[in-house]
Amino acid sequence: MDNQEAVLKLLEAVQAMSSGKEDKNLIPVGVSNRHVHLSQTDMDALFGQGYQLTKLKDLSQPGQYACKETVTLCGPKGAIEKVRILGPARSKTQVEVLASDGFKLGVAPQIRLSGDLQNTDGITLVGPKGSVQINEGLIVAQRHIHMSCQDAQNLGVQDGQIVSIEIEGLRGGTYDNVAIRATDNSSLECHLDTEEANSMGINSLSKVKIKNKNLGGM
Amino acid sequence: MDNQEAVLKLLEAVQAMSSGKEDKNLIPVGVSNRHVHLSQTDMDALFGQGYQLTKLKDLSQPGQYACKETVTLCGPKGAIEKVRILGPARSKTQVEVLASDGFKLGVAPQIRLSGDLQNTDGITLVGPKGSVQINEGLIVAQRHIHMSCQDAQNLGVQDGQIVSIEIEGLRGGTYDNVAIRATDNSSLECHLDTEEANSMGINSLSKVKIKNKNLGGM
Repeated sequence: MDNQEAVLKLLEAVQAMSSGKEDKNLIPVGVSNRHVHLSQTDMDALFGQGYQLTKLKDLSQPGQYACKETVTLCGPKGAIEKVRILGPARSKTQVEVLASDGFKLGVAPQIRLSGDLQNTDGITLVGPKGSVQINEGLIVAQRHIHMSCQDAQNLGVQDGQIVSIEIEGLRGGTYDNVAIRATDNSSLECHLDTEEANSMGINSLSKVKIKNKNLGGM
Repeated sequence: MDNQEAVLKLLEAVQAMSSGKEDKNLIPVGVSNRHVHLSQTDMDALFGQGYQLTKLKDLSQPGQYACKETVTLCGPKGAIEKVRILGPARSKTQVEVLASDGFKLGVAPQIRLSGDLQNTDGITLVGPKGSVQINEGLIVAQRHIHMSCQDAQNLGVQDGQIVSIEIEGLRGGTYDNVAIRATDNSSLECHLDTEEANSMGINSLSKVKIKNKNLGGM
């Protein structure tokens, strides 16, 4: 265990100690780096016919996991290596990057919710057995909060609603246009990308709070 | 002129067309990437005795400029190449990085205002003629707004005051703890780093607005 790990464990322990008096409105944070969800067809092209992903570790959302496998993303201006694949396979390939990755790749990906891929940018993915050029599917993820339907009821929000979240600290502030994504099979977690987490001075041990509860979708 | 430049020029032109009806409270944004300010002593060690920097382009703050020269930053876990030097020389070397750079380098730099370097982290800088290990001076810049004393009066704020800024758009929100830095010789500009700008979906053509005007410093 190195120093950074030790400090994170210590922070976790201190946070657990104070959890008895914890505000029930505090929402855990999941910080996402760039990653790829692959369709089975694209997986075959990149890794070989009938390839099965190797689970590296489970993610907080039930059934979702990070894989050993990575790909290289190639755009008109540059490439980004070792981009992690998340499993399981999906019906359509989706590539989620940071806004800064767009500058490296030479594209300007739209801010979209996962699965909302119509008229988004394409990109080239390169794996050990071949490459795939997708015509759409490259996005920067819109901030969102996963939760169960029970969580939604407890927090007084509903699936599809757009809220603002408050973040405390020296680098604190408010992020608007955070989408509520409530299903029976989701764990409570606010998903931000690494740039969004860094800009507010938070990490995967932080908690955020819903601020405004405007009714209705976007 | 490539496509990206063309789009930026077009955006600039459209924004200029609408400037007649522009809100006087809108503040231009300057987006900073990682950069280094060098003392003459450290410059001598990195580039050779009596070395003079080569100006690449003027920055918006009077007398400040980006230089042709770059250095490599080296921390316990990694290195970052081609980090731009900004001139002129300062009394003390200051290295301003992104929060994500801290992970690459293996350090956790404090959020500080420029010049407030006491008890900050050190780092190693490598140039073509040698290397320098500074004992302090590595920071992530705290968000701030440069302005003239006249601007401060117009905006109803004062030097040292801490405000919040509002940002519009799909990735919009509010950044708290933004420091006002008013001097007779400053241009009105809100300084954010690339992660902060990306997280709010803005760039160097964007405008922000001061939200709360809490009196007093931090």
